Order: sequence, then structure tokens, then C-alpha cells
Amino acid sequence: MGALNDRVLTVCRELAGHGIGGMLITDLANIRYLTGFTGSSARLFLTGKGGYLLTDSRYKLQGAAELKGRPAVRLRVCKSAYGELGKLVERAGVKKLGFEGSSLSYDAYLALKKAFKGVGFKSIPGLVEARRVVKDKAEVRAIRRAIAVAQKGFESVEDCDVLKMTEVGLANHIESVVKGAGAESMSFSTIVASAKRTALPHAMPTGRAIKKGFLTVDMGVSLGGYKSDETRTFVVGEPTRRQREVYGVVKEAHDRAIDAVSAGVGASEIDRAARSVIKKAGYGRNFGHGTGHGVGINVHERPGVGPKSKDVLEEGMVITIEPGIYIPGWGGVRIEDMVLVKGRGCEVLTEGLQELRILR
Amino acid sequence: MGALNDRVLTVCRELAGHGIGGMLITDLANIRYLTGFTGSSARLFLTGKGGYLLTDSRYKLQGAAELKGRPAVRLRVCKSAYGELGKLVERAGVKKLGFEGSSLSYDAYLALKKAFKGVGFKSIPGLVEARRVVKDKAEVRAIRRAIAVAQKGFESVEDCDVLKMTEVGLANHIESVVKGAGAESMSFSTIVASAKRTALPHAMPTGRAIKKGFLTVDMGVSLGGYKSDETRTFVVGEPTRRQREVYGVVKEAHDRAIDAVSAGVGASEIDRAARSVIKKAGYGRNFGHGTGHGVGINVHERPGVGPKSKDVLEEGMVITIEPGIYIPGWGGVRIEDMVLVKGRGCEVLTEGLQELRILR
Repeated sequence: MGALNDRVLTVCRELAGHGIGGMLITDLANIRYLTGFTGSSARLFLTGKGGYLLTDSRYKLQGAAELKGRPAVRLRVCKSAYGELGKLVERAGVKKLGFEGSSLSYDAYLALKKAFKGVGFKSIPGLVEARRVVKDKAEVRAIRRAIAVAQKGFESVEDCDVLKMTEVGLANHIESVVKGAGAESMSFSTIVASAKRTALPHAMPTGRAIKKGFLTVDMGVSLGGYKSDETRTFVVGEPTRRQREVYGVVKEAHDRAIDAVSAGVGASEIDRAARSVIKKAGYGRNFGHGTGHGVGINVHERPGVGPKSKDVLEEGMVITIEPGIYIPGWGGVRIEDMVLVKGRGCEVLTEGLQELRILR
Repeated sequence: MGALNDRVLTVCRELAGHGIGGMLITDLANIRYLTGFTGSSARLFLTGKGGYLLTDSRYKLQGAAELKGRPAVRLRVCKSAYGELGKLVERAGVKKLGFEGSSLSYDAYLALKKAFKGVGFKSIPGLVEARRVVKDKAEVRAIRRAIAVAQKGFESVEDCDVLKMTEVGLANHIESVVKGAGAESMSFSTIVASAKRTALPHAMPTGRAIKKGFLTVDMGVSLGGYKSDETRTFVVGEPTRRQREVYGVVKEAHDRAIDAVSAGVGASEIDRAARSVIKKAGYGRNFGHGTGHGVGINVHERPGVGPKSKDVLEEGMVITIEPGIYIPGWGGVRIEDMVLVKGRGCEVLTEGLQELRILR
């Protein structure tokens, strides 16, 4: 609770440096990070001294409960957020109001501009996101809890008679296992793809029966607001030589990328470590996505771990390492782990099932 | 498939009337509606003659499969959507490009403006949404399928020994039932609230044990891209007189609103029909939200059914009717149904369990 109060005040103190007297936070993940509020409708108005959380009557009780013990943020339940905001902006004497241009829509920006004549506006990109990239101890604990629950889902695949199941059936089974183990929700729609469909990196499960060949499961759990994100590629039945070879290339790329992770290293270097292995093996064209991304309150957040990323890794970042090879009409492999960046090296948070696992 | 091809062409033919030569669609629900594409990353560029779907390499195979048999939209897999879009805009000779100002962020708008010098921009709000409000037969069938699956979840509550379960446990149970019955995903995080927590209209389930008193379940299923959204409030144990009274008021408000639904009626009149019953009973201050909303590809879409709505109901709209009374520290009741607006009257799509059900 105290930590959350400090988070808000730290951001409040930064406003003057951006040349703004107030800041409107509209991204719900940022609002949750700063205040602990978990409702689906809120705006957070910050001045140099503290904030006001504006929400509607549905969240009156919940808002009061979630903000308890956090004096830096006061709750305002209102029918018209802009009306209430106008009063607060005027009372605080704000001449220039910062806003989240990446979260606020163009139309909402126009409406804001129209509602507050005489106030200047300035998009401040990534103000809160910059603080969210490095996770504190409580956040790492929350991520570990989400991962521990997700592991039960992945492990449950090995106990399934998958050749008697459909892709959707296996996805449902995994989700019921993790929900039974305490998952509040899934980080995203669980991906289960069998055989040739593993060549689709983001295949939604179908009602088709699982067949022999690769079986990709990309699944994550949300717990206490924090997410996990992990992919395992199994083989159903005896793997062919080419299946073993492709899996081996992806595993090698994965391992080299993890070896490269350390505070101070450019994220693009991590991507290069994975990509060079896949290119050398002749599959460069079959690895179309980046090597990873940050994970926290959002399942995709900064830093980006791709060829063009300009982010530099810092101790306490949590990122995925997820190289893959996708061969249309044949199949594909992706191995995705979450790692915690350390001062030297990293810790793999999602241990287990990285080696080729054969389901029979 | 043919129907989808017509959907795109109908919108393409409207562009000239808005004074634009091309239109950039960025809202994924609109893209799904117009093209059938279900991936998580896409932009749709329309000219007067047809469209181009721009996506990244992850969706190459899936995009090709989903666009098959739909000649009006061509697939473009590209690394830089803006780069590819620039070429298409130039080739089509577009001087003014429409965009979805309610979907595009302010920062993305600035980036777009910077990337295409010499091209004018115009926010066209609700171009596709206006077409989505009235559902065609295939869409109503999809919604009915989602509802049929959701019903199994609601019915399963009556078979549970809820006093031995937690809110989270019951939510997990319901979700596993609907997923086993074919739900692709939930429309939103399932709400399960017991006793005093039913006073929170959007309470997320907790690990607390379910107690005697009201038990609210607000749950929906996503199937084939379409959503259901429904709320049932049960009573655990013998209801008190006040519980029966409050339930009765909400039920009466619900029934009067449904009686009022018919093509040609203002949505605000539907809200008034429900609200006047609740006000007359002395609970006006305890009904803080609107009476309903449209449901389709999104769980919340037009029309709004609140006091200030300017929408007029049309045949083929699918809306919720969901009055509620929420009494802090005591509890609350919401009864939410989905109805299909007819030329005269409406059809309640979510039949079952509207009367007070007692769980023992």
C-alpha cells in the first residue's frame, strides 16, 4: 500500500520537469499500477501534489476499498468525468495539461480540447510506462505466482490423451486446470495448434482433432493483475528427423538468447543472438516476429526485444525469449520463456518442459 | 462469405459521400466485421472499389485462409504497415484519407500525418459501427449460439452446492461448463458476487466463501466472434422480505423495459420505462448505470440504452435490458437479458431463470 502511494507521488513530482501543471492518465494498466484500482472505467488526474481518481457510480464502493490507505489519491465518483475534471483543473490552476497520447483516441483528444478552452495540452508518451519496465519485488512476486499457476496447466498436457482431444478441448482442459489452481483470468486467448497449424504463430484453437506432429501451446495466466506468457511445443508421436532438427535449432536460438541477457545489454543484441542461430541454419525467412517483449500488468509491454529495439536491459526487467521457426504447410516450433534480468545474467522464471517432450 | 464481400463493398461505396478517397480502418472489431479476419494485428485500407488488409508475417497463412473467396479484400503481409499503406494511398491517388478517430490514438494520428505529407486526414466516426448496429440473420444466429452455450453455465449454478464454494470457485466452475460446451472465450471476466458484495455492480470474484443472501452472476460467452451478456441474481437460503421486495422491483423494471422495446422507439424511452419503476419504489439513487447496450462482435456496442441516448431502436438490433438496485452494505440485484428488436415488440433471447431462484 505504501509502495503504491510512493509510485503516484514519484510521478507527480516529475510533472514540472515536463512543463505541465497536471496530467491526465487514461490507460487502465497505468491507473492500476499507480493506484491499485482495478475497475474498467477510470481517469486519473495528477497534479504536482497528488491525484484524483474519477470513476462512475458502479465503482463507488470498490474504488473506496482499493484506494484505502493511499492518501495521495482521492476518489471522485461522477457522472461526467470531463465536468469533474474541469473543476479540478481549474481549482489546481493548471495551464498546461499533459495526457497519454498513445492511450487517448484522436476523437477523445478533440473532445478534451473543446471542453477545456484556455488550457494547453501536451502528449507525454510513456510517462508511467517508463516506471513500469523495471519491476519491484512485489511485482516480481506477483509474476512468479502467475507463472506457478500456469506451470500446472502446461504440466497437465503430459497427462492428457491428446490424440483423443480437439485443439479447443485441450485449451479448455488447460484453462480449467489453471483456473482451478487460482488463475483470475487468462493473459490472452490460449493458443493450441496441432500439426500443420503450428505453422501459424498465433493460431486460435479449432474443433479439429489433435493429430501426430507438433503441438504448440501458448498460454498465460493473470493473477493479482500480473501476467505470465509462455509457449511449449510438444511432439505427438515419434518425432521425425526434420522435426528434431527444427526443434533443435529453435532451442539453440532460445538458449543463446538467454545466455546473452544481462543488465546493460541492448535488447536488439538479444534478438540478434537468437536470430543468427536461425539464419545460420537456413530458416531466417521462417522467423518473422521479434524475439521477445516485456511482461507485467500487460502481457505485452516495454521493452521490445526485436531487431530494431533501442531499449537497453535493466536489472528487474521481466522479458520473454521466444524464437520460432514457422514452415507453411509443414509446421512450426516456438519455445517461449520469461526471464528476470539480473545485474549479471538472468533468471529463467518459467523452468520446465523446454526440452523436446514427446506425447504418445 | 458472399455476405462479407458485400459488407466491404457497401462501405467502400459510401466513402465518396464523406468526401474521402480512401479510409483507414484500425478497429479490429470493424475489421472482423468487414473481412472475417480474426488476427490481433491488422489495418484495413479501403478505396471506392475494395480494400487491402495489411498484417504482419504471423498472420500470413491465417489471413489468406480467412479472406478466401472474398475478392473485394486483398491481403498484404508487410513489416511496416505505414510503408505499405503509403504505396497504396499513392497508387490509388487518395488526396483525403478518412480514419477512425475513436480507435486511432492521438499519437498514432500524429505519426500517420507525419508519414503521409501532402495527404489530408479526416476523422469519420462510426462509419462501420453504423452498419453493425442492425444484425443480419447470420449474426443473430451466431448470437443465439453464444447464448445457448452460456445458458448451460447459468443452469449449472442450480446444481452447485454454492455454500461450499468461493466466488472464484463458482466462476471457474461456470467457465469450465461453458468452455466444455463450446465457448471460444468469455465475453468478459465473469462476475460472481455474494451477499453484501452484490452491491458492487461490477465485482470481480474473490476467494471468499459464498454466503447466504444474494448471489449475482454476470457472464457471457464468445462464439464465432459474437458475444452474449446476461446477469442472473439468485438468493442463497430463504430470502428475507426485503430481498423479495427489492428483487420484485428490479424484475418489474426489467419487464416494463422489455414491454417497451419495439422498432421506432427511442432507446431513452426504454431506460425511462425501467427507471421510473425503480424511482417510484424509492430506489432511484441506487440505480446508477444505464438500462442496457447493444451486443454483437463487442460486448458493449451501439445503441446505448440510457437516459441520454439519442439512438432509436431498429428491427434487428440486439440489446441488453439490465436494470439493477445496489444498496451499499446490504446487497444488490441486477437482472440482465438480451433481446432482439422486432418490427413490433421484441424477442427475449436469454430465456430462463429470470424469476427469483432460491439456492439451498
